[in-house]
Amino acid sequence: MTAEELYSNIRQKKSYLCVGLDTDYKKIPKILLDHEYPVYEFNKRIIDATAEVAIAYKPNLAFYESLGAAGYMSLEMTITYLRERHPDVFVIADAKRGDIGNTSRMYAHTYFHTLDCDAITLSPYMGRDSISPFLETEGRWAILLALTSNEGAADFQKLELKGEERLFEHVIATSASWGTIDNTMYVVGATRASMLSEIRKLIPDHFLLVPGIGHQGGSLEEVAKYGMNDQCGIIVNASRSILYADVTNRFEEAARDEAFRLQQAMELTLSERGLI
Amino acid sequence: MTAEELYSNIRQKKSYLCVGLDTDYKKIPKILLDHEYPVYEFNKRIIDATAEVAIAYKPNLAFYESLGAAGYMSLEMTITYLRERHPDVFVIADAKRGDIGNTSRMYAHTYFHTLDCDAITLSPYMGRDSISPFLETEGRWAILLALTSNEGAADFQKLELKGEERLFEHVIATSASWGTIDNTMYVVGATRASMLSEIRKLIPDHFLLVPGIGHQGGSLEEVAKYGMNDQCGIIVNASRSILYADVTNRFEEAARDEAFRLQQAMELTLSERGLI
Repeated sequence: MTAEELYSNIRQKKSYLCVGLDTDYKKIPKILLDHEYPVYEFNKRIIDATAEVAIAYKPNLAFYESLGAAGYMSLEMTITYLRERHPDVFVIADAKRGDIGNTSRMYAHTYFHTLDCDAITLSPYMGRDSISPFLETEGRWAILLALTSNEGAADFQKLELKGEERLFEHVIATSASWGTIDNTMYVVGATRASMLSEIRKLIPDHFLLVPGIGHQGGSLEEVAKYGMNDQCGIIVNASRSILYADVTNRFEEAARDEAFRLQQAMELTLSERGLI
Repeated sequence: MTAEELYSNIRQKKSYLCVGLDTDYKKIPKILLDHEYPVYEFNKRIIDATAEVAIAYKPNLAFYESLGAAGYMSLEMTITYLRERHPDVFVIADAKRGDIGNTSRMYAHTYFHTLDCDAITLSPYMGRDSISPFLETEGRWAILLALTSNEGAADFQKLELKGEERLFEHVIATSASWGTIDNTMYVVGATRASMLSEIRKLIPDHFLLVPGIGHQGGSLEEVAKYGMNDQCGIIVNASRSILYADVTNRFEEAARDEAFRLQQAMELTLSERGLI
């Protein structure tokens, strides 16, 4: 998918919402546990309840890996379901990979070809050859961790380098030249909203993937205020606040309500900027 | 496993060799492809051919993930095989994970409890709360990327911070206080052997996991010279040079020969230092 196709989907759905499929076997409604693949069954229903207003879905690999081979099957079936029923959405593998060149090449093949994801999240610590294999397939994206939403982001990401730049700024400025605005995005946590305007100075045109609203405490309004560019330029993720909006049999309705509530707020920000 | 148990195994086998199970389906002898799980079959034979002189095994997750659910089964069976037949060896999941706290907690549970690995490799970019869930289970280890063996290590790891320290040095010095010498190790590539003596000044007592000898060009002699401490303190990994020493039906013999050749060189370095 190109950046222009993503923008077109954002304008059409009046939304820049990504639903994080951090599907926890222990938290899904008991009624689903009778299915052969309960996690897949839950995902399918969450997807159908939210796809009208979500432009992207982001399965978090940790949750699938924790279930072994059955988890892998659930992931694979979830992606196939998205591809078949909702071919317009952008699928992000939240895997945070990053390894030496030949290993990264193998991960790229797995996520882009075998699993058919549009994008994968990556940790930049190992440098260029750990990232570049993900930039070689047209229409597929590398999403690099820049400034994350967790407390530990302060430990290394914000370190000041010689010459005033901070590590996350250097990571962004350096890696932006490895790819293009059609294959590279950055993760910037919503809990760092005021930093978004500084990041926009470095990369005015790149997409930012923003996790951390909802349970992690970030504010959608602040993210839009500081992070949007003149085409939108942000994809905001919500996971737990949608998936577990209600944990009874009316979880689909509650998930849909929460997704629509977020979409309404997003529509307002898009319209204020004249983007729709 | 404690550090003392690891040292005891090193003295007993006169070796600090880790065999990297980067098992590539496309490279294993054709005769194994008739088995239901060819990758597992190959691993089993490599393990039996080398366990006399290997103190650790390190499956590289990328290679198993690339095969989907069947790959996951092969990984699980390989670890079970190691646990049952060779209970003395140290099992490292080369996964390079690292995520926000609740996700890292899930990875820790998967790798330490479900899969029963002794250790997992981690990327430190997301800071303390991405690492600490891996330090909470007695006898299990977090192995942090510090200075890796690939070209891209120069991009960020070697950046100079304000105050002369380089990023990898800061990562080591900071994270060393999060755990102990009984649950934390660091990855330092063999292609950076001369840096090992500088790292030893920061962490004289921690284990270092050293990949990059063999195909990546690092020298075992230099690694021992600069990296050993007064108890040994290094685990040196070899993957492709052992696994694919020969790709015909005599691959087991060739793998064994190569592992024994490395062990002989390691025995010499241990004996020169009076450690055995």
